[in-house]
Amino acid sequence: MIKYYFDDFRVGQVFDMGPRHVSRKEIIAFAEKYDPQPFHIDEAAAKQTMFGGLIASGWHTAAICMRMSVDGLIGMASSLGSPGVDETRWLKPVRPGDDLRLRIEVLEVTPSRSKPDRGTIRILWTMTNQRQEAVLTMKGLGLYARRPAAA
Amino acid sequence: MIKYYFDDFRVGQVFDMGPRHVSRKEIIAFAEKYDPQPFHIDEAAAKQTMFGGLIASGWHTAAICMRMSVDGLIGMASSLGSPGVDETRWLKPVRPGDDLRLRIEVLEVTPSRSKPDRGTIRILWTMTNQRQEAVLTMKGLGLYARRPAAA
Repeated sequence: MIKYYFDDFRVGQVFDMGPRHVSRKEIIAFAEKYDPQPFHIDEAAAKQTMFGGLIASGWHTAAICMRMSVDGLIGMASSLGSPGVDETRWLKPVRPGDDLRLRIEVLEVTPSRSKPDRGTIRILWTMTNQRQEAVLTMKGLGLYARRPAAA
Repeated sequence: MIKYYFDDFRVGQVFDMGPRHVSRKEIIAFAEKYDPQPFHIDEAAAKQTMFGGLIASGWHTAAICMRMSVDGLIGMASSLGSPGVDETRWLKPVRPGDDLRLRIEVLEVTPSRSKPDRGTIRILWTMTNQRQEAVLTMKGLGLYARRPAAA
């Protein structure tokens, strides 16, 4: 069931995921719950803003990034959770009908000094749309268990 | 309708929000959509992990932070969106039944050099639980329009 332990990650490894379609309905449903600003929930109001139309909440884009990561990598890995994320950048709006792809690149692989059964992976997330424009980048930290035999 | 323009923010200003209750049902519903790891969706599996029980996805906690921010400040401000967030830190798990409070502190207020009608605010978000433990901190950037008369 677990395909990737801490020991299986290498600096420079790349994992590609998607495409993941983003619907108008989902954009509005997320934003009504968690980010009810006019440009995320009201098409007519959004047209009057600098965005020129409805755009997804950046937190929705990040949540979709997480879901793609869980389906494509983290859910098959020995994940022990995450202490945090750095440099979240919303580079371009995500709009209804977009098809998002995700690339995860392994930046750092650091065994724990205090706990020999685990280590930290630092990754770069890059989400792009169907025009190959980057819409989101983030640098994430994740804790992973070592392969039992290797611990 | 707009209570806070760019001109109304000052370094050191503090805005307090909450409490906001977090239910088991909401934790599972969010995670089933966006972060279906066992410790976010399956109570029995979560008991076997280092968390000892169900915890909210960090992206759910961040989304709740955004909703509290929109209700308590950003939704009453001349928000033009955000380019990004730095140093997201999930310091303690958020668990079913927690009551979260949010403090926003203004760190920097920077008028745009190229566009005289707007500026950037840098804020520190600190979410705490009912035991006054910090569960999440983030540093966010937001673009805000200047008061029309002042532009």
